[in-house]
Amino acid sequence: MEPPVAELRLPDRLLMGPGPSETHPRVLDAFGTPPVGHLDPAFIDVMDDTQRLLRATLRTDNEWTIPVSGTGSASMEAAIGNLVEPGETAVVPGNGYFGDRMAEMVRRAGGTAVQVETPWGKPLDPADVRDACAEHDPAVVGVVHAETSTGVRQPEMSAITDAAHDHGAVVVADCVTSIGGVEFRMDEWGIDAAYAASQKCLSCPPGASPLSVNDRAMAKILDREESVRSWYLDLSLLDDYWGEERAYHHTAPVNNVYALREALRLVDEEGVENRWQRHEEYAEALQEGLWALGLEPVVESDVRLPSLTTARLPSGLEPGEVVATMRDDYDVEIATGLGAFADEAIRVGCMGYGAHRGPVLETLGALGETLASAGVGVEPGAGVEAAVSTLGRR
Amino acid sequence: MEPPVAELRLPDRLLMGPGPSETHPRVLDAFGTPPVGHLDPAFIDVMDDTQRLLRATLRTDNEWTIPVSGTGSASMEAAIGNLVEPGETAVVPGNGYFGDRMAEMVRRAGGTAVQVETPWGKPLDPADVRDACAEHDPAVVGVVHAETSTGVRQPEMSAITDAAHDHGAVVVADCVTSIGGVEFRMDEWGIDAAYAASQKCLSCPPGASPLSVNDRAMAKILDREESVRSWYLDLSLLDDYWGEERAYHHTAPVNNVYALREALRLVDEEGVENRWQRHEEYAEALQEGLWALGLEPVVESDVRLPSLTTARLPSGLEPGEVVATMRDDYDVEIATGLGAFADEAIRVGCMGYGAHRGPVLETLGALGETLASAGVGVEPGAGVEAAVSTLGRR
Repeated sequence: MEPPVAELRLPDRLLMGPGPSETHPRVLDAFGTPPVGHLDPAFIDVMDDTQRLLRATLRTDNEWTIPVSGTGSASMEAAIGNLVEPGETAVVPGNGYFGDRMAEMVRRAGGTAVQVETPWGKPLDPADVRDACAEHDPAVVGVVHAETSTGVRQPEMSAITDAAHDHGAVVVADCVTSIGGVEFRMDEWGIDAAYAASQKCLSCPPGASPLSVNDRAMAKILDREESVRSWYLDLSLLDDYWGEERAYHHTAPVNNVYALREALRLVDEEGVENRWQRHEEYAEALQEGLWALGLEPVVESDVRLPSLTTARLPSGLEPGEVVATMRDDYDVEIATGLGAFADEAIRVGCMGYGAHRGPVLETLGALGETLASAGVGVEPGAGVEAAVSTLGRR
Repeated sequence: MEPPVAELRLPDRLLMGPGPSETHPRVLDAFGTPPVGHLDPAFIDVMDDTQRLLRATLRTDNEWTIPVSGTGSASMEAAIGNLVEPGETAVVPGNGYFGDRMAEMVRRAGGTAVQVETPWGKPLDPADVRDACAEHDPAVVGVVHAETSTGVRQPEMSAITDAAHDHGAVVVADCVTSIGGVEFRMDEWGIDAAYAASQKCLSCPPGASPLSVNDRAMAKILDREESVRSWYLDLSLLDDYWGEERAYHHTAPVNNVYALREALRLVDEEGVENRWQRHEEYAEALQEGLWALGLEPVVESDVRLPSLTTARLPSGLEPGEVVATMRDDYDVEIATGLGAFADEAIRVGCMGYGAHRGPVLETLGALGETLASAGVGVEPGAGVEAAVSTLGRR
């Protein structure tokens, strides 16, 4: 007979990887609040608040703005699975892991995915999207605003949506690693559907994931010939719950919505534009610290995300070993690169509650010591020093 | 400009409806624990613990026993969507709301659903399932062990699985409202796949939902000709994360898993059989109290669930009004009937942490006063008295 499972005891990690990120204590308090029922008028008020705050954070007036009852890949599949009908073509990005996942979800939805070939670490060229639209006549164009696998920010979002709209396609944007931390203007940029996650720049543990759909995209969904392939994620059914009727569809993850509401209140209190600015400031300090430690940027500075930095290690170092030492010896979570950068780079997040002086300096200090003890000829404090000096110049 | 969203302030409801149910304080504490990363070795240990405790609770040795990253309908769709391939037939129950939902999910998966016609409020007759198998040659047979819409417990589960297996079909069982509160023996009863929710007899807020699949069902899934229609819920991909590799698939709802683990530890501490017994005892007290208040059972006693009771109100009373008064004047959540019983009955839960003396008596006291003030000639304390006396006889 096995011994009983022990009380929950966890290490106190500093979360500076690609997410989940550090959580504000107010968000954790909300998480641990006793639930009311998912159809209780008191919960309906919580839903209303959450929807209103989400709209402000995404910079949209879309009525259709909700947290999906699952983690980021669920809101992603809700977007793709509702908008792509069997037989339709979707143009998706080829410059990162999440573009690949989008392609896979298009296929699961019964569609054909055409990838815009672009090297990992580079943004899409709107001209390539325009060409792909002309060649393949897609019903949907996907774009990843913040590629979590590489740290690329897609600039010229309006040029991409223009290219898609000129061909009559709707645009789905992944803003998983930008929402609440990196400038994102859903309506101004002409994005028809956007999905996100809670555990990146919103600093809310995963489980309820933002999705917003404009009237044009919703009209396409309501006009489908065949039902959405997932009942759980069918937006035409979810409308009964999150829309005016508030009728039962499925049980919402009540406590996750409490927590998301609190995380969005923190965004509102700070102001979303101030928050973008703060992410820029601390990311600059973090990145200057990384370069001072001898790491090299994978992404050019004009399209580099503040929220996630992919950095090449000095040669000979194994990303997996650096990540393990950071975790086991310093309780700091960062991640290895993915795909094209898996063997040479690390990914360091600077998200939400982690985008502050303390977490940035602690991360750079731990990395400096990790590199020094791995025999790289580097001053362990060089990263911290560069970051402090960068912050001082502001 | 709208005023800022206020601090989270919620009424202190007693949750005695069809779920979410009352939550143990230890589960809420676990929920509010700062997350570690979903790939952290410390979280892998949490996953191992959770899987082990889930197996014990479901009475199964299935390796393939995991919490799905969503609420109960997500684990339901994971079961149906993985097991039903396009073109296949599934026999599903016709005696309640969740059988209807199963049928809808079969269609979304590309299959054909055949319902075993049975009145709401009655269990399936295994002979009817056998006939349906002979007539329709299904690949999958669905059965609802605990029908949350009516309060029916399906007896003779082995007779149903025998009927299905004799025709070569795999059996999917809904144990949403039985897991952890009502006798359920997955392996002994020959069930191939079972799905559940956390917010019923496990008393854990919704968001991570049990699913268990045996080797036979998993072989069918791995042998599919066409990919599962949902990427998020594809068990062949989830295998990489929850199986031996522990490779990234999607971000798990870390805090929901913490909470589920703690809820399952509480099951383990009490002993799952003792827990079944406790649900029986307090449900009997609750039901005797309901009858003493003039309500009438919808379901015969030999197939009546302990965890959820559907009871007809004295004639002339609107279920919706009774539910609203209970909530607004007494802070007690119960629910109206559904479908065939929507206009005449209420549903009262007796689940998990709510299956205790205090919650049962508080519910009956509030209901007695609600009925008395609605002009029903009933002694307001009659329900409490009957319950106390029933408990005293034990």
